[in-house]
Amino acid sequence: MTKLCAGLWPPAATPFTADGAVDRDRFVRHCRALLDEGADGIALLGTTSEANSLTLDERRSLIDALIEGGTAPERMMPGTGACAVGDAVALSLHAVRAGCAGVLLLPPFFYKEVSDDGLFDYVQQVVERTAEPSLRIYLYHIPQVAGVGWSLDLIERLRRAFPGIVVGLKDSSGDRENLRAMLERFPGFAVFPASEALMSEAIPRGAAGCISATANVNAQGISALIAALRGGGDAAGLQAAVSEVRASVAAFPLVPAVKAILAHRYGEPDWARVRPPLRRLQDVDRERLVASTGVEALLR
Amino acid sequence: MTKLCAGLWPPAATPFTADGAVDRDRFVRHCRALLDEGADGIALLGTTSEANSLTLDERRSLIDALIEGGTAPERMMPGTGACAVGDAVALSLHAVRAGCAGVLLLPPFFYKEVSDDGLFDYVQQVVERTAEPSLRIYLYHIPQVAGVGWSLDLIERLRRAFPGIVVGLKDSSGDRENLRAMLERFPGFAVFPASEALMSEAIPRGAAGCISATANVNAQGISALIAALRGGGDAAGLQAAVSEVRASVAAFPLVPAVKAILAHRYGEPDWARVRPPLRRLQDVDRERLVASTGVEALLR
Repeated sequence: MTKLCAGLWPPAATPFTADGAVDRDRFVRHCRALLDEGADGIALLGTTSEANSLTLDERRSLIDALIEGGTAPERMMPGTGACAVGDAVALSLHAVRAGCAGVLLLPPFFYKEVSDDGLFDYVQQVVERTAEPSLRIYLYHIPQVAGVGWSLDLIERLRRAFPGIVVGLKDSSGDRENLRAMLERFPGFAVFPASEALMSEAIPRGAAGCISATANVNAQGISALIAALRGGGDAAGLQAAVSEVRASVAAFPLVPAVKAILAHRYGEPDWARVRPPLRRLQDVDRERLVASTGVEALLR
Repeated sequence: MTKLCAGLWPPAATPFTADGAVDRDRFVRHCRALLDEGADGIALLGTTSEANSLTLDERRSLIDALIEGGTAPERMMPGTGACAVGDAVALSLHAVRAGCAGVLLLPPFFYKEVSDDGLFDYVQQVVERTAEPSLRIYLYHIPQVAGVGWSLDLIERLRRAFPGIVVGLKDSSGDRENLRAMLERFPGFAVFPASEALMSEAIPRGAAGCISATANVNAQGISALIAALRGGGDAAGLQAAVSEVRASVAAFPLVPAVKAILAHRYGEPDWARVRPPLRRLQDVDRERLVASTGVEALLR
């Protein structure tokens, strides 16, 4: 029986040094802090992590850094999807051999309007060429960014073709209808909405947890909300509070905003760095962000 | 004084072996055939080449294979753009050190709605970190696929910031207004429309040439058209003929269609293979394609 990931898995942001390299030590410290604040695991190497702006070697090195830094691999779900299936295989293999709980798989995202058959081929190659029985794939659905998504019919086909391997999905679409349809149609499938604002409707319907950019700055609040919802108690106040933080941050470009808050909270201006094509927040936006109601409360 | 690329530069399709590897020998033979048929150079590693479905090592190996196979690097313009600027730098460096005439640079294409400033940062890093005076960048504008494009204002800024380095652009947008605007606004900029159907209007306005998927199967016709247009003669018949081929092929998914025709022409069914997320043409479509008016004439 496969133990599925559940709860809060922040998609950890990736810090860079002054010369633009990945800052492994700072990354390890941040992930440790997230776990200390209540996160159940770390979904490293996602969109918030700027994973596609990292080379394959850098991505492998962050997986290794976390493990060397003492994070249990069972608490790690790295993103391993790539345009080249060979890259997706190499990264997935690295993750599985390191013992990671699962991998978060973007579809190949260069070509658009590709067929479900073509995406099925891609997953099949990842499964067959990785050839590790402990591979657990969480599909990464973020069509508004990737330009390519996992349709309900394709998800059904993949679950049937690869039972116990294709076990879950992160839904970053923000499409409530789609989220509800997935939860209804695929009982037992580990679905993670990408926004904590959806927790009160998603957890009671069977969502596995949350993988949200803003969990980088509000792990405590969101994990408390998930715990309350699971306990069946009144979570309205907790929901309102995390939703307010979410809205305050999402009023700005999400990745630079998350990093600006981390720079402020940790007192480490280095955290604000991003790689192109992203740009760090301008000073005026940074000041507005940290003074906004939701964020100001976090930083108190 | 920089010698710019000009004329017909087919974006060479990439063949795969039965076990899915890049077929270097078949690739070299194909590129040699294209040059023999009148192509001025080879724009390897573009969209038709499935470059983003290849690993970095595979991409480097195709550049090396062509040179080892006897193609002059001055006749090569490999695609080197990537989501990770570190990958774009590594590939561009490889191409420049191999002596390639230029590189065709996709913008980073994972994040959408990115700013011109962020894209400027990306090009600046490619230029500064490649740090080779012989680097020549041709911007690759294919917004309908990449989801990110090079705006006219950004092109102007890049040309001013990197004169003699950012020297041209491939325009795959199919947007006639944008093409005309570029040709008017940037005299001396080497603009390559991605469709031979636009040659009669673009060459007289100063376009440098053509980088078209269907040049893989019609190099002779397109290079004759470009020569006629440059000579100022009547090219209406040549234009109509190549446009008919183009329309016949473009009625099908372009990359699988081009490869199906190559499989047929070379008598090498192996050519039909594609990597996911693309799929080879189904038999019925392949038969319709090779029997279509424009293509049937090519294969006679």
